[in-house]
Amino acid sequence: MKTSAPPILPDEGMWTFEAPPLARLRREFGWAPDRPWLERLRRASVRFNDGGSGAFVSGQGLVLTNHHVAMGQLQKLSTAGRDCVKDGFFARSRGQERRCPDLECNVLVSATDMTRRVLRAVPPRLGPAEANARRKAEISRIEKESAEATGLRSDVVELYQGGQYWLYRYKKYTDLRLVMAPEAGAAFYGGDDDNFTYPRYALDFAFFRAYEDGRPVRPKAFLPLEPSGPRPGEPLFVSGHPGGTDRLLTEAQLDFERRVTVPARLERVRAMLGAVKSYQARGAEQARRGRDHRVNRENADKALTGEAEGLSDPALLARKRAEEAALRAAPASRPARSAWGRIAAARGAYERRFERHTFRRLWGYRLTGFADTIVRWVAEVQKPNEKRYEEFRDSALDSLKHRLFSPAPVHLDLEEAMLAHGLAESARKLGASDPFVRAVLRGRSPERAAKEALRGTRLADPAVRRALVEGGPRAVGSSSDPLLLLCRRADPYYRAERSWYEDRVEGTERLEGRRIAEARFKAWGKEAYPDATFTLRLSHGRAEGYAWNKTLVPWKTTFNGLFDRAASFDGQGAYALPPRVHGAKGRLRLETALNFVSTHDIIGGNSGSPVVDRRGRYVGLIFDGNIQSLSANYAYPGGAGRAVSVHAGAIREALRAVYRMPGLLRELSA
Amino acid sequence: MKTSAPPILPDEGMWTFEAPPLARLRREFGWAPDRPWLERLRRASVRFNDGGSGAFVSGQGLVLTNHHVAMGQLQKLSTAGRDCVKDGFFARSRGQERRCPDLECNVLVSATDMTRRVLRAVPPRLGPAEANARRKAEISRIEKESAEATGLRSDVVELYQGGQYWLYRYKKYTDLRLVMAPEAGAAFYGGDDDNFTYPRYALDFAFFRAYEDGRPVRPKAFLPLEPSGPRPGEPLFVSGHPGGTDRLLTEAQLDFERRVTVPARLERVRAMLGAVKSYQARGAEQARRGRDHRVNRENADKALTGEAEGLSDPALLARKRAEEAALRAAPASRPARSAWGRIAAARGAYERRFERHTFRRLWGYRLTGFADTIVRWVAEVQKPNEKRYEEFRDSALDSLKHRLFSPAPVHLDLEEAMLAHGLAESARKLGASDPFVRAVLRGRSPERAAKEALRGTRLADPAVRRALVEGGPRAVGSSSDPLLLLCRRADPYYRAERSWYEDRVEGTERLEGRRIAEARFKAWGKEAYPDATFTLRLSHGRAEGYAWNKTLVPWKTTFNGLFDRAASFDGQGAYALPPRVHGAKGRLRLETALNFVSTHDIIGGNSGSPVVDRRGRYVGLIFDGNIQSLSANYAYPGGAGRAVSVHAGAIREALRAVYRMPGLLRELSA
Repeated sequence: MKTSAPPILPDEGMWTFEAPPLARLRREFGWAPDRPWLERLRRASVRFNDGGSGAFVSGQGLVLTNHHVAMGQLQKLSTAGRDCVKDGFFARSRGQERRCPDLECNVLVSATDMTRRVLRAVPPRLGPAEANARRKAEISRIEKESAEATGLRSDVVELYQGGQYWLYRYKKYTDLRLVMAPEAGAAFYGGDDDNFTYPRYALDFAFFRAYEDGRPVRPKAFLPLEPSGPRPGEPLFVSGHPGGTDRLLTEAQLDFERRVTVPARLERVRAMLGAVKSYQARGAEQARRGRDHRVNRENADKALTGEAEGLSDPALLARKRAEEAALRAAPASRPARSAWGRIAAARGAYERRFERHTFRRLWGYRLTGFADTIVRWVAEVQKPNEKRYEEFRDSALDSLKHRLFSPAPVHLDLEEAMLAHGLAESARKLGASDPFVRAVLRGRSPERAAKEALRGTRLADPAVRRALVEGGPRAVGSSSDPLLLLCRRADPYYRAERSWYEDRVEGTERLEGRRIAEARFKAWGKEAYPDATFTLRLSHGRAEGYAWNKTLVPWKTTFNGLFDRAASFDGQGAYALPPRVHGAKGRLRLETALNFVSTHDIIGGNSGSPVVDRRGRYVGLIFDGNIQSLSANYAYPGGAGRAVSVHAGAIREALRAVYRMPGLLRELSA
Repeated sequence: MKTSAPPILPDEGMWTFEAPPLARLRREFGWAPDRPWLERLRRASVRFNDGGSGAFVSGQGLVLTNHHVAMGQLQKLSTAGRDCVKDGFFARSRGQERRCPDLECNVLVSATDMTRRVLRAVPPRLGPAEANARRKAEISRIEKESAEATGLRSDVVELYQGGQYWLYRYKKYTDLRLVMAPEAGAAFYGGDDDNFTYPRYALDFAFFRAYEDGRPVRPKAFLPLEPSGPRPGEPLFVSGHPGGTDRLLTEAQLDFERRVTVPARLERVRAMLGAVKSYQARGAEQARRGRDHRVNRENADKALTGEAEGLSDPALLARKRAEEAALRAAPASRPARSAWGRIAAARGAYERRFERHTFRRLWGYRLTGFADTIVRWVAEVQKPNEKRYEEFRDSALDSLKHRLFSPAPVHLDLEEAMLAHGLAESARKLGASDPFVRAVLRGRSPERAAKEALRGTRLADPAVRRALVEGGPRAVGSSSDPLLLLCRRADPYYRAERSWYEDRVEGTERLEGRRIAEARFKAWGKEAYPDATFTLRLSHGRAEGYAWNKTLVPWKTTFNGLFDRAASFDGQGAYALPPRVHGAKGRLRLETALNFVSTHDIIGGNSGSPVVDRRGRYVGLIFDGNIQSLSANYAYPGGAGRAVSVHAGAIREALRAVYRMPGLLRELSA
C-alpha cells in the first residue's frame, strides 16, 4: 500500500537554511534563492537569546528587532527616575548608546549534520533512560570539542523529534547597546486587546548596536532597509528563530497537550497574571517594575487561548488523525510499530505525575531563578562534562554567566510577591502534607516563607552571586543566605522530578520519536521541515489581505488608521496616542504604510525577524501573528492566518517625523 | 403552573408609539419620554414607501434619509448622459431641486385600535378561508370609511400575528424633490464587501424636500441636526419603519423558514444576481442601468446568508423551542391547544406546493410588474371594494397610480433580460410540461418569449399604461400589446395560486395566530412588542462598542479611517476614494466622527431612521446593521449585534468640506 505524504500548503514551512524547499519555491514563485543569497541572509540574521530574532541593517553593527523583544533590556535599563519602556530611548550619538546588562545575540556561522555520530553512540536495544544518557553524553562531547576547536558557541540541535542532529556554530555577541526604542504607547499601540489581532497600528521596532572590543561590529552581511516595502503578491522571505512547534507530535501527545498541558499552562499563566496585577496595584513604581512580567503573561494568556482553540478544532484533529493512521499503515513503519503505543504509555505515566512534576519546584521570579541556578551550578560542575544537565555543560557556561551575573536591577518586593504566589500555588496544588511543600514552607504561610527568603537575601548583588559560584559547593553549602537555603531545600525534589521525566518520558519520546522519524523519512522522503527549535529558519510567503467576518481585510494599514483608532476610542487607555506621535500628525505622511500581513509560517521567537524580498532588501519586520494564526504550534494555519509586520516605510517615517533621528536615518540609507 | 414570559433583553424591541415601554425605559435609563416628546418625534418621522425611513430636519420640508433609500429615485432620475448615482446630485438652489418620478412618503398622523371591530366581523367557528375573506372585507370597509372621512391614507395594520388590528392614518406626500445625494463611491464606500460590516466609513445620506401645492412643506415637527452626535452610553432612540420580522413565528413556521423559504429565496436571489451581472457585462450603459437592481440583489444575498446562519444557531432555536413549550403548557393556552398543529399542517401543505406556488408567476422587472398590475387592476376594480385584492382597494388606488404611471425611464433590454431569466427559472423549476410554462412559453425558448413580449410592447410609455387602466377590461382585453398578452396568459395561474395560499395558509395562520396571540396576552400580559410591519416603531439603546475577534471594536469611526481604508486597499475597487472626497482631505477635520454603532433593535426598513437623544436632537442616521445583527429577523441579536449609523457630525462635515453646500448647512442650522 502506497500512502502519500501529508500535503504541505503553498506557503507552509519553517525550513532550515541547509535544506530550503528550492523546488517548491521554483514551482510557486518561479524563483528560488541561490547559495550566496541564502548565505548573506543567514549572516545578517541575528538571534536574541532572551527569545527573539533580529537582523543587521547597517555596516556598523546596527541591529533591528521588535520593541517587545527589546523590552526585557529596556526594563532592565530603567529606574524609578528614568522609564525607557514608557518614554522610549533615543541615542543621538554613539556616546549615548547604552550597554544592555545581560543580552546575548548569536549569528549562525555553520551547521553540520551530526546525526550518524549521535545515533551511533546509542546502541540499539538500550532502555530509554540509558539511551537518553548516552545520547546526551555524545552531544556534550560534540559541543565541547567544537567550542574548544573554534571558540564559537556550539549547540547540537535535535530535529524531527530525534530523527536528525546538527551541530550549529554561532558567532556570539554580548556587548549590545541600545540605540533607539519608541515609547511603549506607540510600539505596543492597542495593548493587550490589539495583541494578536489585525488590522494593527504598532511601531513595534527597536535598534541595538553590536560591539566587539569596544567598537561597532562590522557584520559580514546586512540587509538594507527598503522603505517602499513589499508589493502584494511578490515572493517574500522571513529569516528568524521560531521558538518551538509541535507539529510532528503523535496523536497521543497532541491529545495530552489538549487535555493536560495547555489547560494547566493557561491556569498557571492566569494565576501569575493575577499575582503580578495585585503587585502592580500597590503603586506607580510597582506598576513600572512589574510591567514586562505583566505584558509577557498577558501575551501568553492570549496565545495559549488561541492554541487551546486550535487544539479543539475538529478539522485540525481529523487531519492529524488521518496523517498518523496513514503513516502507521505504511510498510516503512514496521520497525516503529510499537513506537506510538510506547509514547502514549509514557504520556500516561506523565499525566499521573503531572501536578507533582509541575509544582515540586520553586516558582518565583528572576532572583529565585538565580539562586536555583547557583545551587545547581556548583553541584553540576563537579561532574564530568557529559553527565551534567545540558545548561551546565562547559560549552554553555559563558552564556549562563552572562545572565547570572547581570548587573540589571532586582526588585525584592516583586521577587517576594511572585515567590509567595508560587509557593501558594504549590501548596494549593500539592496539599500541605506534600514533602516538598513541607520542606519549603516549614509550617509557615507562603507569604511568610517568601518574605523570610527575600528580606534577608544578598543575592540581588551580582558580585555576591559571582562569589558563590566561584566559591563552589563549600561557599554555597556554608552560606546562610535565606533564599539560597530555600533553594537548597527544594533542590532534591527538582532533581528527582527531572530525572524521572528524562528517563521515563523524554527518553522514551526520543527513542521512539527517532523510530517514527525514520519511518516517516522512508515512507514520505525528506521533503518536510522539522519542528521549530529556536534555530534559524526560512519561511516563504507573500503580503496578502484576506476575507474575514464577511468583508475584506486589507494587506496593509496606514498612519491614517492609527489616528482613526485613537479618535475612535476617544483616546482611552491603550488607544491613547503618545504625545510625540500626536504632535507629529502634521509632519507625518499619513498614507505611509504602517503594518502589513503576509502568509509566512511563523511562531513566537520569530518576533523581530526581517522580511526580505528577492533582492534581499529589508521590507518588513515581523512582530506578531493574527488571531487566526494562533494554532500555528500544531499546524500551519493557512486560510485567514497571517504574520503581522511593521512596514519598512513606517520605520523610516517614524524616525523622520516622530522621533527625528536624522543620524540613524542616514546610517540606514548608507 | 405559572410560566414566566420570555425575557426581553435590555435594548430589545421595536415598540409602537401607542405602547412604548415606558416602565422599562425608566428602569434602564432613569428617564422615559412623555407624550409631547413622542408626538413630536412621530410627526417628524417619515416613511419612504419604496422601503425606508427618514425624518424632517428643517422647517422647510427638508427630509434626511439614506443614499441607499434614495437610490431607486436617483437611478430613475439618471440617464446615459447624467448619472446621479455615480456622480451624486447637488441642488444649490430651490430651483435646482428635482422632482422624483414616483416616490411617496407618509407621516403617521393617528393610530386607532380596531381590534374589536375586525374580530367581531369574523364569527367563531368559520373555516379559515371564509374567516379570512370576512376579515379582509371588514378591513377594506374600515380603510374606505376612514379615507373618505379624512382624506388621509388609511391602512389597517395587523399586529401580533392577528392579535390586534390598528387603523393608521397617514399624511401623504407625492411631490418629493431631490436636494442632495453624495456620489455612490462615498455613500456606499466599500461596496458589497463592507455592506453589513463594521467598522465602516460610509456617507450614506441624502436629502429630499417635500412639497405640497408647489411649495415646500412646513412640517408639524422636525429634528434639528446635532453635529456633536451622541455620547457613548446615553439614552438614544430610533424612530423608523422596520419592514418585517418573524419573531413570533411558531416552531413549525420557523423550521419552514429555515428549511424552505430562506434557502429558496437565497437561490432565487443568487440566480437573479447572475442574470443582472450578465446583463451589466454588456457595456457601460448597461452596467449603469442595472446598478440598483444589482446592489439590491447583492444586499439581499448577504442579508439572507446572515439570516440563514441565525436560523441555524442552536441557541436561537433552543430558546424558541423553550418559549413555545412554555406557552403551550400554560393554562391560558387551552382554547388555542390545536392552533400550533393546524399551523404546522398548513405549512406542510404549503411545502408540498412551494415550487409551484413560487414559480407559476412571471418574474420579470419593472415593466412586467406594470403589465401584471394593469391586467389585474381592470378586473379587480369591477368587484365590490371589500372583495378585491388588498392592493386594489379604493383606499390604495391613488398610491398605486403614482407608481404605475411613473414617468421614470424604462430600459427594454434590461426588462427583457430579467424576464427571460424569470421565464427560464420557471421552466427549470416546473418543467416544460407544466401548464403555466406551456401557457407563457408556447413552445418558445424563454429568451425568445421574453424578446417577443418586450420588443413590441408600448407599455414603457406611462400614457399608454394610463389609457389601458382608464379603458378598463375592454381596452385591456382588446389590446394586442405582446407583454400584456403574456401577462393575461399568466394571470389565471397567479390567481389560482394566490387563492389557494390565502385560503389554506394565510387563513389558517391568521385564525390560529390570533388564538395563540390571545393565549400569549393572557399568559404573559401585553408587555411585549409586535413583529415589525413597516409601520412606525420606536427602538431604544445606546452608542456602544463591543468585543469581537479577541479585541475591541470602537463605538465610532472617523474620517481618518476612511483615508486609511482607501490607502490600505491601494485605492482598489469599491475602496477607491471619489475625487471630491480625495480632494477634500486638506479641508476635512479628520478626527470628525463618521459612523457609529448602537444597540438599537432594527431591521431592513429602518434604513434612514433618525437616532435622537433625550432632547430630541438628531444625532445619527441609521443605515445598516453589522454581520452579528443579521439574525434580527428571528430574535433581537444582543451580544455584538449592532445598528450602524452615519454620525450627524459627518453629515455636516461632508456638506462643508467635501460638497461645499453652505445653503443646505444654513438651513440645517436654522
